[in-house]
Amino acid sequence: MAVRLEILERSRLTRARRGRVHTPHGSFETPAFMPVGTKASLKGLVPPLVRATGSEIVLSNTYHLMLRPGAELVARRGGLHRFMGWPGPILTDSGGYQVYSLADIGSMSEDGVRFKSVVDGSTIEMTPEVAMDVQQKLGADIVMAFDDCPPSVDPKRSSAARDRMLAARAGAFGEAYDHERRLDASMERTARWLERCKRAHAGREDEQALFGIVQGGTDLERRTRSAEQVTNVELPGYAIGGVAVGEGFEEIVSVVGHTAPLLPEEKPRYLMGVGYEKDILAAVLSGVDMFDCVLPTRNGRSANAFTREGQIRLKNARFAEDDGPIEAGCDCLACDPGGHGWETVEGRPFSRAYLRHLFLAEEMLGPILVSLHNVRHFQRLMVDIRAAMREDGWLDLAGRWPVCEPALAAFPGLAERSG
Amino acid sequence: MAVRLEILERSRLTRARRGRVHTPHGSFETPAFMPVGTKASLKGLVPPLVRATGSEIVLSNTYHLMLRPGAELVARRGGLHRFMGWPGPILTDSGGYQVYSLADIGSMSEDGVRFKSVVDGSTIEMTPEVAMDVQQKLGADIVMAFDDCPPSVDPKRSSAARDRMLAARAGAFGEAYDHERRLDASMERTARWLERCKRAHAGREDEQALFGIVQGGTDLERRTRSAEQVTNVELPGYAIGGVAVGEGFEEIVSVVGHTAPLLPEEKPRYLMGVGYEKDILAAVLSGVDMFDCVLPTRNGRSANAFTREGQIRLKNARFAEDDGPIEAGCDCLACDPGGHGWETVEGRPFSRAYLRHLFLAEEMLGPILVSLHNVRHFQRLMVDIRAAMREDGWLDLAGRWPVCEPALAAFPGLAERSG
Repeated sequence: MAVRLEILERSRLTRARRGRVHTPHGSFETPAFMPVGTKASLKGLVPPLVRATGSEIVLSNTYHLMLRPGAELVARRGGLHRFMGWPGPILTDSGGYQVYSLADIGSMSEDGVRFKSVVDGSTIEMTPEVAMDVQQKLGADIVMAFDDCPPSVDPKRSSAARDRMLAARAGAFGEAYDHERRLDASMERTARWLERCKRAHAGREDEQALFGIVQGGTDLERRTRSAEQVTNVELPGYAIGGVAVGEGFEEIVSVVGHTAPLLPEEKPRYLMGVGYEKDILAAVLSGVDMFDCVLPTRNGRSANAFTREGQIRLKNARFAEDDGPIEAGCDCLACDPGGHGWETVEGRPFSRAYLRHLFLAEEMLGPILVSLHNVRHFQRLMVDIRAAMREDGWLDLAGRWPVCEPALAAFPGLAERSG
Repeated sequence: MAVRLEILERSRLTRARRGRVHTPHGSFETPAFMPVGTKASLKGLVPPLVRATGSEIVLSNTYHLMLRPGAELVARRGGLHRFMGWPGPILTDSGGYQVYSLADIGSMSEDGVRFKSVVDGSTIEMTPEVAMDVQQKLGADIVMAFDDCPPSVDPKRSSAARDRMLAARAGAFGEAYDHERRLDASMERTARWLERCKRAHAGREDEQALFGIVQGGTDLERRTRSAEQVTNVELPGYAIGGVAVGEGFEEIVSVVGHTAPLLPEEKPRYLMGVGYEKDILAAVLSGVDMFDCVLPTRNGRSANAFTREGQIRLKNARFAEDDGPIEAGCDCLACDPGGHGWETVEGRPFSRAYLRHLFLAEEMLGPILVSLHNVRHFQRLMVDIRAAMREDGWLDLAGRWPVCEPALAAFPGLAERSG
């Protein structure tokens, strides 16, 4: 097996556990946060800066890479690790989510999905076999099954921009769209496609770990059925997909709290594309080990900095003359450059005033420094979550991370019993 | 005096010299290349990465900073060093060049120039006194006199886009534009303005060094007269302005070769905004000590990488599968990350193939890595130039830097006598 979870410690009061996942390119501590390097680069961050955030594993997107530069080209370069200069573990998604939410889909059938490349207009056939082949060529340590992703909410009933977009795509699948039938059909298809993924992956289990993905939307019965179907296929890890795609915190807690325990105890559990700090903590308390999210880098690029009290918008005029760091006490490269051995002027941080200037002046250094801070923010949260495991210090953790308080409140009675 | 040149070594065959300039924020080796951080940031490069290129002093632009975030705001932050987190020496230009070439000029008189802010539309009065006041607030180690910058070539006789633009601005100065008269008037005015700059700077000579600027275009007699006028004002350093603004290599060599020896031997000589490798070497051989140029960062952002043989365009299809570094043997962070203690995959560089991908995918990391390479390229040239000083190894230098060969050829007989 390419990937193995070593469980080092368990929470007594919750399903949370602390561990280490071993991969062909080294190990990473869990619960783990994976920053996203969509196109084989964490936007603006050279690999040593990514490392300096405490990140041990990064995620890259199959959909984007297969379009450009192409999986074959990456394979001829020796794979993604060598191509992007990241020696540690890498996870690639299957491209499923992006194909369904970004691509110009031409047709969809039991075999797979046909869509038009945004790069050169060519028609691309995406099937479970193609997704596995592409991910083999990219060479990540963990690869994801190609699943059928239905619109997360009934597009006919939503007025949100994203849902209207999905509705437009759903229209391509036939006029008589029935959301409930689509969800059931999608789940069954995902199960059949998982078998095809596993067959396509056969013989390479020691090089790459294939994870299956549980779908089922916000309906807990569907989640149960999907979890049964997916875990019936013997794999080194399992993921929960289709979460945090528009639903609220309570529904996320409900779905993850229900689904995570249905996944094998001894294998890594990965909650895809999630999320805010409270979502992550709630999922950890339900037994999830791995997370990825674009929030720290995406929001960082638009001057939104995460703090323990919530996000602050650095373009705001109130920061114009603020000499303080993004967040007092933060140990990131922007807030405490001296702590990383960087030369400073009198030990000073990159100030909110300077960062605001960089954003107003449209200087790249703004997105870079705030992305560094934001990724470190999430890695600090994971450090604190892992440290809270031993003594079940969840109350203490929520006290130090006000943004996490709702997660504790979502587990009745936990606050009273935890430290 | 805030700044002092210590001459450490002299070429026997040329006017070149090697030295060290001492400033209130440390010293830098000369001949020195200053990368440009226009808006208080070298685009995309956190200060330790700037340092890793071997840069010891950086330049920032008064014109841009006075418009945003404003000199007063920077002053309240403790000055430019603290604001941008650069503990080493900084030089600011006076804003003259930018006002004349970028700004929407309203009126121009003996007192100064009035122009409209591109940031908020307000009218800004720029005079020698204002330029000194703004630069005092920014707090750089070396500040430049505010000079009157005429169009470098007669705008009426040129069809180049930049000259047409200058012609449009020149039109604002009156219909009956006479280029030769403008050049003479500008020179006289620059001399009078230099006196005003020095008076405005009085009492702060130990904190900041004021450099005067010789103008005069491509006419050597005007250069002689301007050099006399400017050096009549006692200052800790002198610059040559108005070079490499459209004229060819031979004219640059002629003007610099004529003007540099007219500047005091014991003080730093700075050639503003120059240039390509051959321009720099030719100027060094004429006795110039300091250079700045946006070429390495600007060209880096558009995928043009400097090599000893000339520039290569990394977007070119021929690099799609090229696993080599930008330049074999280069010790920059992109070409030799392992040499800087960076974690690598099997000691590999960031390949031309990866860099091409980053540019096609519009990833910030492309401009960042190529800017790092390009700035280091110029710093390596300076290292080699300084090393060539002792034994007059100019022939050897030009052999290792084919792009520099024209510089050697511009000094008849030198190649035969040098090593």
